[in-house]
Amino acid sequence: MPEQSGRHAFDEAVHLTPAGEGRYKGHTSRKYWNFVGPFGGITAATALNGLMQREDRQGHPLSLTVNFMAPIKEGAFTVETRLVRSNRSTQHWSAQIVQEGESEPVLGAIAVFAARRETWALREAVPPQAPPPEECKPFQARLQIVWPQMYEMRYARGRFGVENPDSVTHAWLRDVPSRPLDFASLTAICDAFFPRIFLRRPHMAPIATVSLNIYFHVDAAELAAEGSGPVLCVAKAQVFNKGYYDQEGQVWGRDGKLLATTQQIAWYKE
Amino acid sequence: MPEQSGRHAFDEAVHLTPAGEGRYKGHTSRKYWNFVGPFGGITAATALNGLMQREDRQGHPLSLTVNFMAPIKEGAFTVETRLVRSNRSTQHWSAQIVQEGESEPVLGAIAVFAARRETWALREAVPPQAPPPEECKPFQARLQIVWPQMYEMRYARGRFGVENPDSVTHAWLRDVPSRPLDFASLTAICDAFFPRIFLRRPHMAPIATVSLNIYFHVDAAELAAEGSGPVLCVAKAQVFNKGYYDQEGQVWGRDGKLLATTQQIAWYKE
Repeated sequence: MPEQSGRHAFDEAVHLTPAGEGRYKGHTSRKYWNFVGPFGGITAATALNGLMQREDRQGHPLSLTVNFMAPIKEGAFTVETRLVRSNRSTQHWSAQIVQEGESEPVLGAIAVFAARRETWALREAVPPQAPPPEECKPFQARLQIVWPQMYEMRYARGRFGVENPDSVTHAWLRDVPSRPLDFASLTAICDAFFPRIFLRRPHMAPIATVSLNIYFHVDAAELAAEGSGPVLCVAKAQVFNKGYYDQEGQVWGRDGKLLATTQQIAWYKE
Repeated sequence: MPEQSGRHAFDEAVHLTPAGEGRYKGHTSRKYWNFVGPFGGITAATALNGLMQREDRQGHPLSLTVNFMAPIKEGAFTVETRLVRSNRSTQHWSAQIVQEGESEPVLGAIAVFAARRETWALREAVPPQAPPPEECKPFQARLQIVWPQMYEMRYARGRFGVENPDSVTHAWLRDVPSRPLDFASLTAICDAFFPRIFLRRPHMAPIATVSLNIYFHVDAAELAAEGSGPVLCVAKAQVFNKGYYDQEGQVWGRDGKLLATTQQIAWYKE
């Protein structure tokens, strides 16, 4: 799909065209390509974008769970959205991505959108004491995959591809070129941390995220106030067992604002 | 629904009768009743139980996300299950609970089941140094709700209903009477921790879990080896903002085995 001049590659990648009855047509992006399909984060962002497009959508994304069922092939796909239940201040949605030639969906998701309002508030989690981004060296991907080039990643803690004492990383992330944060880009960022296994067992081996969960802790105005970041991402694994490991993460904005928390479970080979 | 002699109240509560085409009929339990509906954990466990009943189910639960869309009324309900995609070693499922008189589902869930096999393994998370259960005082629920009586809860850290310096709790949990752990009871336990807000803002106010996520880190054999527990539950909140707060938790078995990790996002009033 040709890139329209002036549009960020991220917006190209998640771009959807209405196709009636809650359906939206999209196309994979070569710029966000992973090994055998698009980078999972861009796919999750595209699913969320389908929900954001709905004219009957109310409120802001509160939670999103994406199950990656099969690799998406290069080319066109359809995001199918469905409003499952609408309450006074929440909407429950489901979405799936289907692709021609596949009898079953390649992705399934459920999401909650909610009206957010001022309430008593408390931030208990604490952002790590990381050096400012300009003091952290940009990660130069010596990888055969291209999507990491779509992010400026400055790691303050944790090294990729060596045996670290733990899997904890602190990294400043922003889109390349920089782009104002929104819920779609925040979703993609939640899947843009190094796979935890490569911080503990450094040899390259197949892995795949199976399920990704995100809780959004800010509304659209708070997120817009972050500008184009960078955001400070914290991630760690808790356990690797019998072919699957988890990852939990936080995405911090300026002034210690917790924008999102995220978890995922990923498959690994042997 | 009359309780059959000899069957644990938990098994009564999650009991389902096949009703054709992936549908299963169940009935709410008064013993696991919360304020305006069943305890969310028992409902999540019932949804998972529907998937466990499927004859074409393969492997063990790996991830489960449950969105609570509306309170379930006392009485009968139907769990509707659907195999969305089946791969070589994973199955992707969805489930919903519907109830007569409601045009929309009251609960929606997606789950992944997976074949687990021996692999390289590493446990990075560390269980807390908690005193043994017999040294921790059982929590006596002075609540108007009954479901907490279905658990023996021995808190080693964190006090309910007072202003704690943080929301971290360590608690030994087991079914009452004790019952061998399985994926359904582990699911319910993942929602049985004190609502975090009552550890920081101790006045009673309406709250409701909106979405619950669980990753299972053991297979059925490993879980069975835990007997009837107790399990050590760790939970904390990260942020309370604009009407919603999160909770993340770990469920530890004996010998520091991490059985499950769980997250939820809950609504709170003002």
